Amino acid sequence: MREHLIAMLESRKDEIINIRRYLHEYPELSFYEKNTSQYIEEFYKGKDVAIQTNVGGGYGIIVTIKGGKPGKTIGLRADFDALPIQEETEVPFKSEVPGVMHACAHDGHTAYLMVLADCLIQLKDEIPGTIKIIHQPAEEVPPGGAIGMIASGLLDDLDDIFGIHLLPMGPAGVVGYNSGYVFPGRAYFKLKVQGLGGHGSSPHLANDAIVAGAYFVTAIQTVVSRRLNPFDMGVVTIGSFDGKGTFNVIKDRVELEGDVRAMTEETRALIECEIRRIARGVEEEFDVKCDLTYEPDYPPLYNNPGLTDMVAAALKSANDKDITEVKEFPPLSPSEDFAHYANRFPACFFYICCKPKGVEKPYFNHHPKFDINEDALLVAAKAVGIVVCSYYGID
Amino acid sequence: MREHLIAMLESRKDEIINIRRYLHEYPELSFYEKNTSQYIEEFYKGKDVAIQTNVGGGYGIIVTIKGGKPGKTIGLRADFDALPIQEETEVPFKSEVPGVMHACAHDGHTAYLMVLADCLIQLKDEIPGTIKIIHQPAEEVPPGGAIGMIASGLLDDLDDIFGIHLLPMGPAGVVGYNSGYVFPGRAYFKLKVQGLGGHGSSPHLANDAIVAGAYFVTAIQTVVSRRLNPFDMGVVTIGSFDGKGTFNVIKDRVELEGDVRAMTEETRALIECEIRRIARGVEEEFDVKCDLTYEPDYPPLYNNPGLTDMVAAALKSANDKDITEVKEFPPLSPSEDFAHYANRFPACFFYICCKPKGVEKPYFNHHPKFDINEDALLVAAKAVGIVVCSYYGID
Amino acid sequence: MREHLIAMLESRKDEIINIRRYLHEYPELSFYEKNTSQYIEEFYKGKDVAIQTNVGGGYGIIVTIKGGKPGKTIGLRADFDALPIQEETEVPFKSEVPGVMHACAHDGHTAYLMVLADCLIQLKDEIPGTIKIIHQPAEEVPPGGAIGMIASGLLDDLDDIFGIHLLPMGPAGVVGYNSGYVFPGRAYFKLKVQGLGGHGSSPHLANDAIVAGAYFVTAIQTVVSRRLNPFDMGVVTIGSFDGKGTFNVIKDRVELEGDVRAMTEETRALIECEIRRIARGVEEEFDVKCDLTYEPDYPPLYNNPGLTDMVAAALKSANDKDITEVKEFPPLSPSEDFAHYANRFPACFFYICCKPKGVEKPYFNHHPKFDINEDALLVAAKAVGIVVCSYYGID
Amino acid sequence: MREHLIAMLESRKDEIINIRRYLHEYPELSFYEKNTSQYIEEFYKGKDVAIQTNVGGGYGIIVTIKGGKPGKTIGLRADFDALPIQEETEVPFKSEVPGVMHACAHDGHTAYLMVLADCLIQLKDEIPGTIKIIHQPAEEVPPGGAIGMIASGLLDDLDDIFGIHLLPMGPAGVVGYNSGYVFPGRAYFKLKVQGLGGHGSSPHLANDAIVAGAYFVTAIQTVVSRRLNPFDMGVVTIGSFDGKGTFNVIKDRVELEGDVRAMTEETRALIECEIRRIARGVEEEFDVKCDLTYEPDYPPLYNNPGLTDMVAAALKSANDKDITEVKEFPPLSPSEDFAHYANRFPACFFYICCKPKGVEKPYFNHHPKFDINEDALLVAAKAVGIVVCSYYGID
Repeated sequence: MREHLIAMLESRKDEIINIRRYLHEYPELSFYEKNTSQYIEEFYKGKDVAIQTNVGGGYGIIVTIKGGKPGKTIGLRADFDALPIQEETEVPFKSEVPGVMHACAHDGHTAYLMVLADCLIQLKDEIPGTIKIIHQPAEEVPPGGAIGMIASGLLDDLDDIFGIHLLPMGPAGVVGYNSGYVFPGRAYFKLKVQGLGGHGSSPHLANDAIVAGAYFVTAIQTVVSRRLNPFDMGVVTIGSFDGKGTFNVIKDRVELEGDVRAMTEETRALIECEIRRIARGVEEEFDVKCDLTYEPDYPPLYNNPGLTDMVAAALKSANDKDITEVKEFPPLSPSEDFAHYANRFPACFFYICCKPKGVEKPYFNHHPKFDINEDALLVAAKAVGIVVCSYYGID
Repeated sequence: MREHLIAMLESRKDEIINIRRYLHEYPELSFYEKNTSQYIEEFYKGKDVAIQTNVGGGYGIIVTIKGGKPGKTIGLRADFDALPIQEETEVPFKSEVPGVMHACAHDGHTAYLMVLADCLIQLKDEIPGTIKIIHQPAEEVPPGGAIGMIASGLLDDLDDIFGIHLLPMGPAGVVGYNSGYVFPGRAYFKLKVQGLGGHGSSPHLANDAIVAGAYFVTAIQTVVSRRLNPFDMGVVTIGSFDGKGTFNVIKDRVELEGDVRAMTEETRALIECEIRRIARGVEEEFDVKCDLTYEPDYPPLYNNPGLTDMVAAALKSANDKDITEVKEFPPLSPSEDFAHYANRFPACFFYICCKPKGVEKPYFNHHPKFDINEDALLVAAKAVGIVVCSYYGID
Repeated sequence: MREHLIAMLESRKDEIINIRRYLHEYPELSFYEKNTSQYIEEFYKGKDVAIQTNVGGGYGIIVTIKGGKPGKTIGLRADFDALPIQEETEVPFKSEVPGVMHACAHDGHTAYLMVLADCLIQLKDEIPGTIKIIHQPAEEVPPGGAIGMIASGLLDDLDDIFGIHLLPMGPAGVVGYNSGYVFPGRAYFKLKVQGLGGHGSSPHLANDAIVAGAYFVTAIQTVVSRRLNPFDMGVVTIGSFDGKGTFNVIKDRVELEGDVRAMTEETRALIECEIRRIARGVEEEFDVKCDLTYEPDYPPLYNNPGLTDMVAAALKSANDKDITEVKEFPPLSPSEDFAHYANRFPACFFYICCKPKGVEKPYFNHHPKFDINEDALLVAAKAVGIVVCSYYGID
Repeated sequence: MREHLIAMLESRKDEIINIRRYLHEYPELSFYEKNTSQYIEEFYKGKDVAIQTNVGGGYGIIVTIKGGKPGKTIGLRADFDALPIQEETEVPFKSEVPGVMHACAHDGHTAYLMVLADCLIQLKDEIPGTIKIIHQPAEEVPPGGAIGMIASGLLDDLDDIFGIHLLPMGPAGVVGYNSGYVFPGRAYFKLKVQGLGGHGSSPHLANDAIVAGAYFVTAIQTVVSRRLNPFDMGVVTIGSFDGKGTFNVIKDRVELEGDVRAMTEETRALIECEIRRIARGVEEEFDVKCDLTYEPDYPPLYNNPGLTDMVAAALKSANDKDITEVKEFPPLSPSEDFAHYANRFPACFFYICCKPKGVEKPYFNHHPKFDINEDALLVAAKAVGIVVCSYYGID
């Protein structure tokens, strides 16, 4: 069956590309992917397969491919939301929606998975188990669509789950993998510092919120510099210090917003604890009111070592002409809501390289000029197909 | 003549109040006082006096009362601009101009001086010298109207100058004075900190302008705490920290705006020097670009001790029924562009109390509910009249 | 009597100088002035006067001169302790005690007062009241000798009290005075910051006390810069940051010691409150133990305005050939335990200038090269004598 | 030969232990290991081998075992210096030298290597290459003894080098390895901040070095928190803030000493650059003189991946009864001057576990109660012997 699958995918390469281009032209923002969801649903209509829509209270779709023989159940997940970015590429299928762009390659993820799913449907009698195709909305915006998909209960019977991401870290043909923690978890926080306004010439009659906020920023540096194990990855960024006011009026209130990254749950919990402590300390120190909102969102993404070894071995031994290199990647700095699945099920999330041809320094995901080599879409389909075959011991 | 003058003023108390109410109803912002200026000009029309309008390139008016005998030349100055404040009082002559209000009592200053000037014009034959009535625009907004009045050259021959301010620090009848530095000087600064933007999870690829700005705020505290003579008055307030951004994006640029107060020119110069130094230090320390704009505006206001002694003595010995108390005041925290005159000529700026009747804690100048006891207007006219008589040795 | 007193003092000028030189040669540290006290006691032996020794549990002496007529009771106070300083002058009567020096002119204070007291004893029949001569030990070291003198109860009947200080702010002949708060009050504090030691390479297993201490130092700057009325005098100095350790070992504990100055009790209380708050804030912020010892010692010294007016008027109208100028002084920055008397009784503490002849920039009190023009000793005796006469209305 | 070697080592287990106990009883400090060196020299006397003493201007010894056949040249290195620690164990062979202790197991390193070397000498005819036994002094104190050993030129012909460290991270029998950067590099710095002393009440006449030093400490936190790649390991510790002074005297000068750790040379260079920049910034910001001494010492230790793979494979396939587990270790936080060899030659430094029997939480190296399970010494000898055999392809 495996040879057959590979041949089917190769023959449908153009179709994958066309689906991706269509999605690219009509991107939709996270949690608002109504048309995209309908488009995917249409694709599966009439096919010999169970399809569930509006999964998890949103636009999620689960396609259940019941194999001809009993066996394990796995999930294959692709996300389909776009970003609030105005596209600046010159591709002919440039986004038609002002200010919205598939700048994170979710169009590619969805396109390859639709065609791969269709092939697997056709070959399902030979599959010793069940494959759940997970078309997930809203990866980009916390709390993320994965939570709803899991909460639906429809995935409760998964034994393992796989996902990929297109990344321009190498030319099409390169596949990357890594075991253990691969993407950091994340948290968001907002600190409102309430002092007392007053005339700039009379600080004693006021209580300067800008000063308290500034000392908070300097103190928060010690979380990473002094509290973290130096071998652990952790980041605390204050991305917003909203303290615009009038030069000669003491500011009564500032709002800070920040971003936390951590590679393990322990580190993420430690950072939260420290930020809360420092907020309480600043409150006391400067006699201000500190109102801290702290929201952990995506957890660190943990790739199951055994599953990852299996993926790496399967791809390395595949000898596919389109998969030119399979190599270990370092941990990466963005966060991914696939981590929610990986918290629940043994998981492996791996990388399909997609650097455009002839480009030395590619624009990365989320850049208005982000672009891909569409050859990578077939690589994605083949790689996941090979992993499925290997998983089920299908030759 | 003095008794005559006092009697004239008493008989015109209602007129003073009416003028003040008219001005109060039709306030104009600093540098835009066209109608107010015309109204004042009208008042002097037909009187036996030289009047110069559009002085100093703006709406300034100088009325020159040449006395019947030779002698010294003095200036009497009143300002006539209003503030960008929406009035919240319930007076029947409430501002008719939305968002503009005579909340600093310049309407009262102008009203008393117009009537006093008219009386002096009528009595001018008995005056051994020349009195220049200075109706000045734009006191509230740096660089202030005083600079233009002086730059006109029309005041070059002043020997001394006097001015008053209505303040609610006591009931009508109380007059305050103080010698030496009485109002602090001021400066404005803006610091633009330019770092390098980037993703919140990758601080090493960016350069965080919020962090550099926050360390600047903490360092700037040492100017007052460690560099100033503890017996000198000085203030450095950062009134604006404009660093609003996105929580997970490292901010490339922040803008801080600040306000400096100092009671002597030496302190003002020292603070400027220190702020410049710290900006340079932060630039080096955090490898950012610090672009500092620093603009001294109103100087500290220095009351000539001899002149002030004269004023205090004259008022204390006046035995006027409306002037119930003459007392020394502490230095005050606002700034005043009368300081420019005091830098150029021996000067005395003193205070006419105007707390509304029956009020314990009055609203202060610049408050939307600021109000005065209009009895203070006659006190102002009398007090300045008495000072003039005393100055010229007129009984 | 007054002329007589002046003549007596003039005739004993050399004696005053000799007493001062003797004391200068044999200085004793605060609370250890046994021989000095005995020397003073000897001086009064055989005189027609009541003398109390070992007052207040220390070496204090009170000599009570009961006048011939009933009237008010006043105190005249001079201190007699020396400083732990190695003298570096070249005077022939240089300190014989290694490391101890009369570098604050208390030798002069004591010398003039002994001779003045003796004269007053001789003239006591003409005095309508009682004069208590207060020879006080231990002015230099908190809690100071004044507390004991007052606690003895022997001064409970004072109506008013006077004291002087020799200062090199002008040549001999100049006498200075100032009303209201003239010397700041003081407090001492020690902050022990207890973290957790550890290896320099493993900050997460330790808790860095140096970092917590350093943030405390930066935060404490805001007390003066943001919490004080800019017109008030206040100082917070961290004079000691004891954090010596090994470069690659995280320090478990640091000790900071600081000095507070404030010109009013309100400001002193405010600063204490703020330092306590910041210590609590730092404790929370950095999860360390902050152990703060805070000890107010000398209060601000308040000169009673009425009494000070009397002193100034008496001296200005004295027409004494040795008192060449009587002028208002600004507030000064050291602290003085005379403030304890001034907290209890109406008081006036004034200044006798003593700049050495031919010197432009004199060494100030507490400097190893501090020296005085001994002509100032007679000025002191005369000035206080004149004040006494004026106080009692003696011609 | 390999079986023979293993048998020889097993038969000499007690000898290894006895040597280790002798060395433990007579420890010598880094750069002062005269007797230890002589003891080692004695051991080799009379053996059929070339021995060079006083290598590198110190007490280093190189024993060159020329094999019977031509081939590659490798180094086996053991260090033999002790630490300035007062031993607190209860072992019968406790240190006889007060305040000096073999608390880092260098006694064990030397003991195993001496006996292994002797065995290899006896078997040398079968070795196709040359083995240099490197007995190195002064590992504990920068600049470290390795520099001298390398500078001697006697190691110029090495192809590869190996070393081990005894660590209580597991029971005897466990051997650990790791590829790439395994120990961080290190740097030492001292910052002298020179301000201007003065009286605590007059900050404007002084320039507070404690304040400048404290702001330096807070600013330095940003090096790790904002400048490092969050996936890189780096530490900056200020271990000493020498600012002890008098509470009411503004401190003129403080000295800070710090410790830097970094896992790569790039990170180490980046941290140096940033600390230098911040020192310059603080100098400007606070108008002080900053004198920074910065001394990189041990570089990061880089294990050659190929060599490490060889070591791991050899040990894993050894099937030795004393080597119970061979596993990958994480990077560790101390620094090691073996890194100098690894900078010059392909190197592998691996770990022999030595946790005492029956102990759950062992005392770590450098603790006064540090102890080992002496069974680990035979494990060390065998493990290195097996690596040598494998390296030369000896069965």
